[in-house]
Amino acid sequence: MTALLQLSLIGIGTGNPDHVTGQAVKAINTADLILLPLKGEDKADLAGLRRAICNAALTNPATRIVPFDLPQRDPATPDYVDRVNDWHDAIAAVWADHIHAHLAAGGGANVALLVWGDPSLYDSTLRIAERVGRSLPMTVQVIPGITAIQMLCAAHAIPLNDLAAPVVITTGRRLRGHGWPQDADTVVVMLDAGGAFSTLDPAGTEIWWGAYVGMAEQILDHGPLASAGPRIVATRAKARADHGWIMDIYLMRRQGVAPQPS
Amino acid sequence: MTALLQLSLIGIGTGNPDHVTGQAVKAINTADLILLPLKGEDKADLAGLRRAICNAALTNPATRIVPFDLPQRDPATPDYVDRVNDWHDAIAAVWADHIHAHLAAGGGANVALLVWGDPSLYDSTLRIAERVGRSLPMTVQVIPGITAIQMLCAAHAIPLNDLAAPVVITTGRRLRGHGWPQDADTVVVMLDAGGAFSTLDPAGTEIWWGAYVGMAEQILDHGPLASAGPRIVATRAKARADHGWIMDIYLMRRQGVAPQPS
Repeated sequence: MTALLQLSLIGIGTGNPDHVTGQAVKAINTADLILLPLKGEDKADLAGLRRAICNAALTNPATRIVPFDLPQRDPATPDYVDRVNDWHDAIAAVWADHIHAHLAAGGGANVALLVWGDPSLYDSTLRIAERVGRSLPMTVQVIPGITAIQMLCAAHAIPLNDLAAPVVITTGRRLRGHGWPQDADTVVVMLDAGGAFSTLDPAGTEIWWGAYVGMAEQILDHGPLASAGPRIVATRAKARADHGWIMDIYLMRRQGVAPQPS
Repeated sequence: MTALLQLSLIGIGTGNPDHVTGQAVKAINTADLILLPLKGEDKADLAGLRRAICNAALTNPATRIVPFDLPQRDPATPDYVDRVNDWHDAIAAVWADHIHAHLAAGGGANVALLVWGDPSLYDSTLRIAERVGRSLPMTVQVIPGITAIQMLCAAHAIPLNDLAAPVVITTGRRLRGHGWPQDADTVVVMLDAGGAFSTLDPAGTEIWWGAYVGMAEQILDHGPLASAGPRIVATRAKARADHGWIMDIYLMRRQGVAPQPS
């Protein structure tokens, strides 16, 4: 009788190896198999950095690291959510194939994936694990990691929220489509393909921006949206050209309806 | 000539010593002085747990740990934000006194405070540091830690956000006053004095709740708000009576306007 499969989704932070928690290090070393996605959405630098973080934490010689090629999204599927769901189905099939092959070869029941940031925040790993679990009985363990939001706030030494006030976390796509969210004077924007803040009236709004937060390449900027916005657009375009890819995040605060600290 | 004061605000997570990052351990051991708040808002168990996490990480015999009594909020100040601001002024004065005494005795320039969770999220430490900095020139370094939000999502193995959808982080006070926030089908509620979710129409809403998340005492519940809500109110009351204090957090999701994954 074999043990029930345990799938560990391990948050590893955003590129600073010192942000890996003790729990993540233990989970990496408890794994029999670590599946390491290599391509697809992942940028080459990120795949290398994930591998480096894994290698730095791994001291168990019995742990197998198996790289695999991520399937691509199908640009022929017009609807964004449909396209992502189809893509998650395809990734789940690849995971399942690798896990079946590992178990068939006598491998142990602890399988792990390393997740950029934290598995809870704008990450697909939990959704893919749920798909794999439909045909492969398993328990899922989630190990939290430092997110890009925390790294952005830490790098700028700012609080996420104003005193007793709410915060909205949203996407660039949604900011473009829906404007400034109601009910909050602080907005964090992730997954912005570039400059969604330019669609807003900048009056009374400040922005704190970061690219490659947590990595050696980290770039920060901060100021009134009216003046910092165009500067960030230019910095972002240059950084993207220099590196071949970019990952950025920003927080905006406006003077508004919520209570403000002195 | 003395070195410029460096104040390190170190996020230590929510009670699981394994959630402390490598960066936090290094910062604890680089500190010349660690100020450890003992009373006031802090519950006795939490103060002890913070001390235990500090002791587990600390290997530098030169680091001094100085406990201090937190001032109390003045209940005579009617406005919530005024009351908190006055309280932060009082805490800043206590920090400044301890730092001046440490420096006057020839202590080194690295001063640290250990922050529950992460210094960016519903925490006053950055606001107090800003006040101290007005009279005492310093650089502020923020070290991110695992938050109660991440711990709640990890414990339930759920994503924070629906696919491509926004999230609102808010307080119990605000949920009671303003109802379900517009523009998001996922709401995380912190600092709830108890059962603010009971003021909502529960139809179509699920809740994931956790108390003492990350600690040995962790309690979880999950279900449709209609049936889980009253159960959580009862569990919370009992836990609070048993422990003498409670710290809890919850995430609610409703079927709504944002795109939903399959």
